[in-house]
Amino acid sequence: MSSRERIVRRVLDALGEARGTGVDVPRGYRRRLTAAEAATRADLVAMFTERVAARRATVRHAGADDLATSVAAALWARAARRIAAPADLPFGWLSELDGVDAVADTGLTDLETLRGLDGVVTGCAVAIAQTGTIVLDGGRAQGRRLLSLVPDYHLCVVHADQIVGTVPEAVARLRPERPLTWISGPPAAGGPEARRVEGGHGPRSLEVLVVED
Amino acid sequence: MSSRERIVRRVLDALGEARGTGVDVPRGYRRRLTAAEAATRADLVAMFTERVAARRATVRHAGADDLATSVAAALWARAARRIAAPADLPFGWLSELDGVDAVADTGLTDLETLRGLDGVVTGCAVAIAQTGTIVLDGGRAQGRRLLSLVPDYHLCVVHADQIVGTVPEAVARLRPERPLTWISGPPAAGGPEARRVEGGHGPRSLEVLVVED
Repeated sequence: MSSRERIVRRVLDALGEARGTGVDVPRGYRRRLTAAEAATRADLVAMFTERVAARRATVRHAGADDLATSVAAALWARAARRIAAPADLPFGWLSELDGVDAVADTGLTDLETLRGLDGVVTGCAVAIAQTGTIVLDGGRAQGRRLLSLVPDYHLCVVHADQIVGTVPEAVARLRPERPLTWISGPPAAGGPEARRVEGGHGPRSLEVLVVED
Repeated sequence: MSSRERIVRRVLDALGEARGTGVDVPRGYRRRLTAAEAATRADLVAMFTERVAARRATVRHAGADDLATSVAAALWARAARRIAAPADLPFGWLSELDGVDAVADTGLTDLETLRGLDGVVTGCAVAIAQTGTIVLDGGRAQGRRLLSLVPDYHLCVVHADQIVGTVPEAVARLRPERPLTWISGPPAAGGPEARRVEGGHGPRSLEVLVVED
């Protein structure tokens, strides 16, 4: 019997007959925003924008037609010379990158190369208005976790129809077995009493480009 | 009663009681390749390659890792300076285009601009080994019809798992309501007795890049 089996056995013995029965888990939390908070998509976008900004991230808005120009403008503003993007990022997002070199990450780019880049551009799986959170699940246009966590600057494109109101709504859109990265502003280390240190485990700069189609 | 209604009425009257009954449509055609023809995916790829080449198109092969390099090499070989691609083409396909300018077609590029380009890069929906045919349906990485029909050179990326054996198998993968373009080599005008004129209604040069993942 392995250590794992011994531990599982002890837990099961301790639970005894009660196992799997009779435990009331409170589920009375709010699952949706009220109509007063978010009657329209524009309300959701406005709340998301406000909450992301409150988390020290920059938020920009673009129409579908000027997405490529807006991505380029964000990179030019940082004087980025060389960035990475998932290989399956839609080509149209990067088609205006005059003077910025874009590396397609196919999962082979090594850590040193990623560290040397000026940033990364990705999409997301879903975004949450109430908490100003972006969730990546490794799906299309998102790449592997390393890609969005190593470079010091992350430009994340969020389509307006990817924004939901609440965390439960986001969870309903996600598949738990996927590698999820939940991003609420630039990451910070430190508990309530410690000094807040930004960039402890992820990019120090997060910029969100909301695309209204 | 409109002309259309009058014509439909006459047809229905002529059909009389027989309408919708009793007509035997012969469906005895072959729906699949035999095991002798295509036992493995490699057989399908080989047959597709041979048949596409027989239709005066160029076929190249690439691994998933050197797809971007192969796309660039094909364009360099033609001395292409400026090409177009659908805005949702995976960015990784075009990430090695040193010295080639790529325009993202968002449906707004005008005809004159398209005519002035050196070519277009697209993916496809499905490809058929038996006939050497590529089918585009306007879905991801394929763009609108104008895009693949106006420029004089079309580089089409076909993933090995998009190749099926026969036309019925291809039809089963397609949705009839989508805008389908069936490409069997560069288009040619002229009946059996006429002189064959290539490029009459589409690119004069078709190049197919088969990607074996």
